[in-house]
Amino acid sequence: LNTINFTPGPSQLYPTVPGHITTALELGVPSISHRSADFAELYASTGAALRDLLTIPPDYHIWFVGSATEAMERIIQNNVRNHSHHLVTGAFGHKFADQALGFGRLVSITEAPWGDGLDLDVLDIPSSAELIAITQNDTSSGTSIDPAAIRRLHQRYPDKLIAVDIVSSTPYADLDIASTDCAFFSVQKGFGMPAGLGVIIASPRALQRAEVLKAEGIPIGAFHSFPELAQSEAKGQTPETPNVLAIYVLGAVARDLAAYGLTRLRTELASQAQAIHAYFDQHSNGSILATNPDHRSHTVIVGQLGASSAPVIDALSARGIKLGKGYGKHKDTHIRIANFPAHLGHTDQLLSMLEEHFPQNA
Amino acid sequence: LNTINFTPGPSQLYPTVPGHITTALELGVPSISHRSADFAELYASTGAALRDLLTIPPDYHIWFVGSATEAMERIIQNNVRNHSHHLVTGAFGHKFADQALGFGRLVSITEAPWGDGLDLDVLDIPSSAELIAITQNDTSSGTSIDPAAIRRLHQRYPDKLIAVDIVSSTPYADLDIASTDCAFFSVQKGFGMPAGLGVIIASPRALQRAEVLKAEGIPIGAFHSFPELAQSEAKGQTPETPNVLAIYVLGAVARDLAAYGLTRLRTELASQAQAIHAYFDQHSNGSILATNPDHRSHTVIVGQLGASSAPVIDALSARGIKLGKGYGKHKDTHIRIANFPAHLGHTDQLLSMLEEHFPQNA
Repeated sequence: LNTINFTPGPSQLYPTVPGHITTALELGVPSISHRSADFAELYASTGAALRDLLTIPPDYHIWFVGSATEAMERIIQNNVRNHSHHLVTGAFGHKFADQALGFGRLVSITEAPWGDGLDLDVLDIPSSAELIAITQNDTSSGTSIDPAAIRRLHQRYPDKLIAVDIVSSTPYADLDIASTDCAFFSVQKGFGMPAGLGVIIASPRALQRAEVLKAEGIPIGAFHSFPELAQSEAKGQTPETPNVLAIYVLGAVARDLAAYGLTRLRTELASQAQAIHAYFDQHSNGSILATNPDHRSHTVIVGQLGASSAPVIDALSARGIKLGKGYGKHKDTHIRIANFPAHLGHTDQLLSMLEEHFPQNA
Repeated sequence: LNTINFTPGPSQLYPTVPGHITTALELGVPSISHRSADFAELYASTGAALRDLLTIPPDYHIWFVGSATEAMERIIQNNVRNHSHHLVTGAFGHKFADQALGFGRLVSITEAPWGDGLDLDVLDIPSSAELIAITQNDTSSGTSIDPAAIRRLHQRYPDKLIAVDIVSSTPYADLDIASTDCAFFSVQKGFGMPAGLGVIIASPRALQRAEVLKAEGIPIGAFHSFPELAQSEAKGQTPETPNVLAIYVLGAVARDLAAYGLTRLRTELASQAQAIHAYFDQHSNGSILATNPDHRSHTVIVGQLGASSAPVIDALSARGIKLGKGYGKHKDTHIRIANFPAHLGHTDQLLSMLEEHFPQNA
């Protein structure tokens, strides 16, 4: 049975990934020393591929950590002295806030009802907040924040640092990295890779802030503090032995996606998202959780079935189409459908199977 | 050219590893959800394989993190309120202490001259130290601490927590896990895997201590705090999306090593270590850095060549035998030779090439 995973992450592998892993094993990539010139070249090469694909400014840093959750923690430790403000549209926004609470920071939250979304242009951010934490796309609720609104927020609050979770939206989301201080993602979503690597893209200002906090005696951590990450980066190294294999594969996939064409990729994924949204909008029982089209995610689509989702999930699973369950308490009533680059060309098959097992006019 | 990596990590892949990775890709392991029953089974299966191989008591926890360096940090955050005491026999002992300093803990150190080693039986540990941090095998200096001495230290200081870095010694070292509170390793050394996964083996007491610190209001972190790791573990989960592929491969390799036979493995590796030691001991110019045989590492052997090591390293590299450079400032004068399970059967070839390019009677 040829399985296609529409689960929101870990998800379907991008089609070139198994080949890149095989090549890496043949080349001996997992055995190269992380203190060698070969590794420095690999760091530079993957960094260049990401800069090219995501239009990362040349003075921004690219750091490798273990996961996106770790990225949240490091951003809090290194960029927040007392108070971070969190824009929450789902469970992952809370997860970001939890990392701040876990390290004793004051947290304030602006939260949208589940499945709504936030209009950043009318938000008032508390003056004592040093950093605004934004989940650009929340996988739990299928909502998304317009990248252009993040740029406008940055212009309204030029003195506050802005950290943006792009875990489940990059490289689809056209985020202006220059309007962020930290953007971060993990590789098992839009890049279609095995999990086990997180990436932090950090502005010079984010590094400076960490150095200020350190000078003030605030514990910013050791091996994955921003200054240590930056010092290692300058040598083409990481502070610890990193996931070298994943760093190799990430560079290769970033080049594949660039070769496919980012504009083409975005156009095609947007079209697929609209087709899935339309299926639910026209359904007699089903609906998209996010009613406001401006706040709907194009990369993780959350549908409500008006009944238990288990029979539909099971029926499609038996035929090789794996859908995601709802998040947390919505496990049995929602379905979640990922729409990542690995899913290009697979939406028609998904929708025709949905029509068989969850027909629009039941 | 058939390359054999004797570098101390990342090192030679264990011969079954590429096959396990291929199988995992065929089975779709990288796409399984980390919140699924399939993942819970995988966690249990790899945990059972490690418990079997390393004789981990049933009430001890097994937690997955990003690297051994992260393990050091989590142990400090969760088990040290004020003061940790560090037994240092090389650079990795200092790295452990640095994580404590980075989070504002008081650190005291007992340090051996580089290449010596420590006799734990005569050590006096400061009474205010809550935790004793031990690097059981230090890859930088090629020294090792007798596991039996760690058990005696535990008996002398029953009220202090003991954390042991077994990164470059497990599964060779016959460490009594029950005499430790935290033992930790990464997978790119003795398990011969690609880097990108760390493992913490924690006693019930280590978890209790973290809960006490948390109740006192000490920031023990969030997603990788011991209580969160334990809560997730109870559900067969990890707090973040982990390196699922590596967790799969680790279980497979642990079963392979158990099938090979741990006693046989230890006997054969000890014999290989002795052969390499003897080569340097009988050499007119070379020597083993660690002069005291009781403190010599059997898994990472550091040799001095009496001259620059680069010509020998380069000559062997050209013939497919990769040796490690010396650590840090010893980069050009030492060589480091890993003796992990992946190197079984390869020592004769190494020694005959050494005899050609660095003859015993030059």
